[in-house]
Amino acid sequence: MQNILKGLRVVEGSAFIAAPMCGMTFAQLGADVIRFDNITGGVDYRRWPVTEDNHSFYWADLNKGKRSFAVDLKSDRGRELVTQLITTGGEEGGIFSTNLPAKGWLSYESLKNHREDLIQLAIVGDRHGGTALDYTVNAKVGYPHITGPEDDNRPVNHVLPAWDNIAAYLAAISILAAERHRRLTGEGQKVELALADCALATMGHLGFIGEVSINKEERPRYGNHLYGALGRDFVTADGKRLMIIAVTPKQWSGLQRAGGFSAKMDALEAKLGVDFGSEGNRFLAREEICQIIEAWTTATDFSSIKQALDENRCCWGPYQTVRELVEDDIDVSEDNPIFSMVEQPNIGRYLVPGQPMSFSACKRHGAIPAPQLGQHTNEILGDLLGLSDGEIGKLHDQGIVAG
Amino acid sequence: MQNILKGLRVVEGSAFIAAPMCGMTFAQLGADVIRFDNITGGVDYRRWPVTEDNHSFYWADLNKGKRSFAVDLKSDRGRELVTQLITTGGEEGGIFSTNLPAKGWLSYESLKNHREDLIQLAIVGDRHGGTALDYTVNAKVGYPHITGPEDDNRPVNHVLPAWDNIAAYLAAISILAAERHRRLTGEGQKVELALADCALATMGHLGFIGEVSINKEERPRYGNHLYGALGRDFVTADGKRLMIIAVTPKQWSGLQRAGGFSAKMDALEAKLGVDFGSEGNRFLAREEICQIIEAWTTATDFSSIKQALDENRCCWGPYQTVRELVEDDIDVSEDNPIFSMVEQPNIGRYLVPGQPMSFSACKRHGAIPAPQLGQHTNEILGDLLGLSDGEIGKLHDQGIVAG
Repeated sequence: MQNILKGLRVVEGSAFIAAPMCGMTFAQLGADVIRFDNITGGVDYRRWPVTEDNHSFYWADLNKGKRSFAVDLKSDRGRELVTQLITTGGEEGGIFSTNLPAKGWLSYESLKNHREDLIQLAIVGDRHGGTALDYTVNAKVGYPHITGPEDDNRPVNHVLPAWDNIAAYLAAISILAAERHRRLTGEGQKVELALADCALATMGHLGFIGEVSINKEERPRYGNHLYGALGRDFVTADGKRLMIIAVTPKQWSGLQRAGGFSAKMDALEAKLGVDFGSEGNRFLAREEICQIIEAWTTATDFSSIKQALDENRCCWGPYQTVRELVEDDIDVSEDNPIFSMVEQPNIGRYLVPGQPMSFSACKRHGAIPAPQLGQHTNEILGDLLGLSDGEIGKLHDQGIVAG
Repeated sequence: MQNILKGLRVVEGSAFIAAPMCGMTFAQLGADVIRFDNITGGVDYRRWPVTEDNHSFYWADLNKGKRSFAVDLKSDRGRELVTQLITTGGEEGGIFSTNLPAKGWLSYESLKNHREDLIQLAIVGDRHGGTALDYTVNAKVGYPHITGPEDDNRPVNHVLPAWDNIAAYLAAISILAAERHRRLTGEGQKVELALADCALATMGHLGFIGEVSINKEERPRYGNHLYGALGRDFVTADGKRLMIIAVTPKQWSGLQRAGGFSAKMDALEAKLGVDFGSEGNRFLAREEICQIIEAWTTATDFSSIKQALDENRCCWGPYQTVRELVEDDIDVSEDNPIFSMVEQPNIGRYLVPGQPMSFSACKRHGAIPAPQLGQHTNEILGDLLGLSDGEIGKLHDQGIVAG
C-alpha cells in the first residue's frame, strides 16, 4: 500500500483478471476502489485456486485493498444506487472501470446523462463484440506454435495469463491518461480496450509482424533458446537447472571467463569463420556454443557454477518450482519490502504482495486484504450516497443490498 | 497515435524491452519522448529480429514515435547536454525514464541538483542490484515447470517476454502516478521498479503464493488445459485446431447446445455424482468431459463447429501460426483501426500497431515510425537546449553529438 494515488476514486464492475487487476493496482496505490457485485458474488467469486472450503485465492488476491458493495443488479433500485455511486463525488469521483457488458443502464451514453465528465473504461473481448479470453487470444496470435521443445510440434498454451495482465495495466494507463486529460480540460470520455487488440499490438511491438511482412520468414520453435542471442537452460553435475544468458558484450565476455572457455570459443569462431562479438552470430552458432557450456555445467556442481557466474557478473538464474519459490526463496518473504503478511478472512494468514514499484515520496505500508463481499455496503450508502440508517436498513430488508 | 498525453515530455535512457516499451507507449499516446543513445547506438540497436541488412525490427518497433538524440555519453560535454535535456522545461519536462545503470551523473541524487521536482523512474534487474532478464525471472518464479505437455517433464520457457511487457506498463503507471502527484503537490521523486519484483508480485496476485502457503499444494502441469474450469485445445475432422473454453455458466450451457451433448453430460454427471454447474467440478472431470467434446470435434469439419459455437455464443478461438495471423487474419490489417501502414526507413513498408485502447476524446492517427539514430539531435539542441547553429555545428565537429 502506497498512497501515491490518494484522491482518486474508481468504481468497478468486473470479473476475472484484467479489470479486477487494474482496480487492485489502483487500490494498492492509494486510490479508493469500490467493486460492486451482485449479492451472491460475480462469476469469478469461486474461481480456482480455492481453499478446502471453496474460498477463492484468485478472487482475494485480485481484489486486495478494494471496498465491496453488494447489490441486486437486476433491481431498478439497485441499478439506481450503482449509477449514483459511479457518478457521485467531485473531482474524486466519476471514474468507472468495467468488463461487464457495458450496455443499457451501464453504457457510457446512459451514465453520462448523470455526469457529463464521466470517464468510463470498458474492457471487451475483441473489436467485433465477441468473447475472448486469454487462452483464445493466445491461440490466435501464434505463441503456442512457437513455444515448447523443438522435438515436439504440439502447440503449448502458456499458463501465465499474460494477455490479461497486459490488458489490466494498459487499462490502468488509459484511466490515468484520461484522468489527466480531464484534470487539464474538464472533459470526460469513454475508453475502450479489447483483450485481442492488446495481443495483436504486442505482436507488432515485438517485431513479429515486421519479420513476417518484410523478411517473409516465420520464426520456428527454438525450444528453450533465447531468440537472436545466446541463452538456454543447462543442468549442473548435481542436477540443478539454470538459465544462462549472454545478450550484451559484457555478458558474453563474463560468461567466457566464468566457464574458462575463451580458448574453445576462439577456436570455434575460427572454425566457423564468424565473430561471436555479434549477438546474432552467437545465436546462429548456438548449438556448438551450448555444447561447450554444457561440458562445463554437467561436470560442475551448482555452487561452483554459481560462484563463477556471480564473480563474473553474468546474467543467469536458477529454475525453481513454485513451491521452492514460495517456501525457500528469500525474495518471497518479508525480507522483500513488497511483501507483507496478511490475514485474509475465510482463507488464512499468508504472504501478500503490494505493488512492485517503490515511490520515494510515499511510505510503503503493508498490503490490505480483499474485502468480504458487501463488507462496505453500509458505509458506502451512508457516506458516499448520503442515505440515512433507516433508508439503509430498508434496502437490506428489501434484499436490494447486502453486507 | 492518440494525443491524450499531449504536454508530457519523457527523456529516456534505455535498452531492450521494458524501458523502451514504456516510452513507446507514451509516445503513441502523444507525449514527447526523447530517447538518447550513444552515437553508435545502444546495446539493443541490432537486436533480432533483423532485416537481411541487419536493421532491427525489434529496435524500430519498440521506439516508434520517439525522437532520437545521439550523443557521446563518455564525454563531459555530452553528459552535460543530457543532464540539461532531462531537467529542462517547465511543467512539461523533468521526467526521466531509464534502465541504464542510474549511477554517478545519471543518478537521481545527482540529477536532482539540477531540478528539484525531477521524476526519475529506474527499472532494475532485482532488488539486490543484480542483473535479471525476462528468461531468468521466469525460471525463478516457476512457470517453466508447469508449462508444456503433461507427458513431458522438461521445463518450457515462454517465448513471449511477458515480464518485460508487464514491467513496461507498470513503469508507465508509475510515471503517470508520480506526474499526477507532482501536479497536485509540486513534489518530484524517484521511483524504482525491479523486473524480478514484477514477476514475484504477479505470483501473489494470481493466487499461486496463497495456494502453496495455505493449501500446502503445488499445482502440477495440466498441459493445454485451462486451470480450474473447462478449457482445452481440440482438433477438427479437417485438421484445424481450436481452443474451447467454458468458465461461466453461460459458456457451459452454450457449449453443450453447440455440440448437442447435453444428454451425455447429464449422464456423466450422474455417473460421477457431481454437478457440472460448478466450474471446479468441470475441471476435476476434465478428461471425461473432453472425451465427449473430442468425439464431436474429430468427427466434424471446422466450418460446422465454428457455426455451432458462434450461434451459441461460446468462448472459443482457432490456433494460428504467426504467418497465418499476419497474412490471413483481418484483425492484422488496416480494417482494424489500431493498425496503420508505415514506411520505416531502412526496413520498408509494413503494418504497425498503435496503442490498443481508444479514447473517445482523441482522434486516432496513424502510427509514427521509429526515428533514425540521432534524427532529432539538431532540433533538440536548438529548440530545447537553446543552442545556436554555430554551437551545434561545433558539437558535431567535436564528435560530441551526431545525427
